[in-house]
Amino acid sequence: MALNIKPLGDRVLIEPVEEKEVKKGGIIIPDTAKEKPQEGIVRALGTGKLDENGKRIPFEVKVGDRVLVSKYGGTEIKVDDKEYKLMSSDDLLAILE
Amino acid sequence: MALNIKPLGDRVLIEPVEEKEVKKGGIIIPDTAKEKPQEGIVRALGTGKLDENGKRIPFEVKVGDRVLVSKYGGTEIKVDDKEYKLMSSDDLLAILE
Amino acid sequence: MALNIKPLGDRVLIEPVEEKEVKKGGIIIPDTAKEKPQEGIVRALGTGKLDENGKRIPFEVKVGDRVLVSKYGGTEIKVDDKEYKLMSSDDLLAILE
Amino acid sequence: MALNIKPLGDRVLIEPVEEKEVKKGGIIIPDTAKEKPQEGIVRALGTGKLDENGKRIPFEVKVGDRVLVSKYGGTEIKVDDKEYKLMSSDDLLAILE
Amino acid sequence: MALNIKPLGDRVLIEPVEEKEVKKGGIIIPDTAKEKPQEGIVRALGTGKLDENGKRIPFEVKVGDRVLVSKYGGTEIKVDDKEYKLMSSDDLLAILE
Amino acid sequence: MALNIKPLGDRVLIEPVEEKEVKKGGIIIPDTAKEKPQEGIVRALGTGKLDENGKRIPFEVKVGDRVLVSKYGGTEIKVDDKEYKLMSSDDLLAILE
Amino acid sequence: MALNIKPLGDRVLIEPVEEKEVKKGGIIIPDTAKEKPQEGIVRALGTGKLDENGKRIPFEVKVGDRVLVSKYGGTEIKVDDKEYKLMSSDDLLAILE
Repeated sequence: MALNIKPLGDRVLIEPVEEKEVKKGGIIIPDTAKEKPQEGIVRALGTGKLDENGKRIPFEVKVGDRVLVSKYGGTEIKVDDKEYKLMSSDDLLAILE
Repeated sequence: MALNIKPLGDRVLIEPVEEKEVKKGGIIIPDTAKEKPQEGIVRALGTGKLDENGKRIPFEVKVGDRVLVSKYGGTEIKVDDKEYKLMSSDDLLAILE
Repeated sequence: MALNIKPLGDRVLIEPVEEKEVKKGGIIIPDTAKEKPQEGIVRALGTGKLDENGKRIPFEVKVGDRVLVSKYGGTEIKVDDKEYKLMSSDDLLAILE
Repeated sequence: MALNIKPLGDRVLIEPVEEKEVKKGGIIIPDTAKEKPQEGIVRALGTGKLDENGKRIPFEVKVGDRVLVSKYGGTEIKVDDKEYKLMSSDDLLAILE
Repeated sequence: MALNIKPLGDRVLIEPVEEKEVKKGGIIIPDTAKEKPQEGIVRALGTGKLDENGKRIPFEVKVGDRVLVSKYGGTEIKVDDKEYKLMSSDDLLAILE
Repeated sequence: MALNIKPLGDRVLIEPVEEKEVKKGGIIIPDTAKEKPQEGIVRALGTGKLDENGKRIPFEVKVGDRVLVSKYGGTEIKVDDKEYKLMSSDDLLAILE
Repeated sequence: MALNIKPLGDRVLIEPVEEKEVKKGGIIIPDTAKEKPQEGIVRALGTGKLDENGKRIPFEVKVGDRVLVSKYGGTEIKVDDKEYKLMSSDDLLAILE
């Protein structure tokens, strides 16, 4: 089922991955980490940040990418009983390939 | 009846959607969300932000769009007994299509 | 009687409208609003903000416009027993048409 | 007697006007004003702010202008028993014509 | 085994070097240092910061470099039981040659 | 004897003038002034601030100028038993001619 | 013995000069100074700050220069039992010639 949410500006829509799944995937985030990251899947992209000349800067991620995101960034929403996060692309830390 | 409020600069006029309606529409915002978004309809647009060359940057939303907005942003006003919010377009998080 | 106050830079001179008048005009600002706006009339304009190339950016308002302004912005002065506010054009929220 | 103080950069030298004189001049600043302005005369100008291309932006005021200034801005000095203020041109609110 | 983490933007992936190894390598960081640095190896680079013209600024470090990094910067993650840090290239202090 | 201190960047070297001397010179700084200025002589100039195009912006003061400086700005040093201040040219308020 | 530390970006490597030596050298920093400077020798330079056009701005100091530095800036490290500081070139106050 297609998602009916189009992020605005530099925002992306992230579907968090359950921690149990994360552990199987090889990346373990220690509980003691000062700034905890979180794993997720990119589900939708906004239109991107504007550079100084008014051109859109393309996102470094694409829909479907598995990413590490800043745990405390973004805004939580629930669509059809699933939780998502709307967050700035600056809060995406890395792609998991 | 046409609205007689023209937002200035980068501001937009948002008519918040009642939470009851929101739940029927499929998007549920959890009570525990740290930064709660709110659903609303875009009712009027300002003239837009100026880029570095003095040109207006077009809005990514248009009048009538259903949007998710930052709950604590903007300024509340009441027109003809209806509540609205005047808020910066930066506080619009996503379009609900 | 002409006003003898010329605002400097990006500032405008606003004559606040009495709250009683506001209620008749259709716009009611709820007492519980976190950031309360205030209605007023633009009485004088400064020279405007400078853009990056040193050109003045024209104001979006003109003398005589009814506007909603940020209640806590600006500086209060009294001229010939009438109260006015000198405020940055950024503190003007919307024009009431 | 000519003043021997040349303000630097964007600063101007202001000679505050006694409050008694202010009241006769028509502008009364209420005691309850949150950010109190003060009346004064421009006595000397600096060289002006630099724009992005390194050119000086001309002042909007000239020596002799009566101005409203931010009461808590600037630095007080005393020359030949008279008090003056050295302040940024940004702290000048309006010209009284 | 190749790492499956691609840092985003200006971030780099650092593998911290055990303090015991550090002491053999000649660099000792005093316990009393106000802002403690930490030794590490660069394991992966992001795409780099964008300059004002939208061009990527090349990193000053390359994969394999031994570096001193700011101890309290970045985000800790664990991959296949090894600890890493994702940090901005601004938090890299020096290359150890 | 020539001074062997070359300020870096936008900094200038100021030799403060004793308050006793200041009073004879005509400028008296009231004790009650909120932000107290201080008189001094410019003894050395740095290389100047860089503008956006990488060109040095010339200083508005020259060695030997008597200046009013911000009392709490800069860094105190002592050379051959005399006290000096190294301070940003932004902390110079005015030239006393 | 050559140092094996290459500072990154705008950073320089400073070898602090013992206070005893400083006093013989003529510069005495008063104990009561609010922001205490410290004497040191420049031992290594980074690659320099980038200007707006992406060009490196040359350092105003060179290896071997005696400098006054901000005492509380930078990061302390120890190499072969000698203490050094890695600090931004902005924290260098003056060259002692």
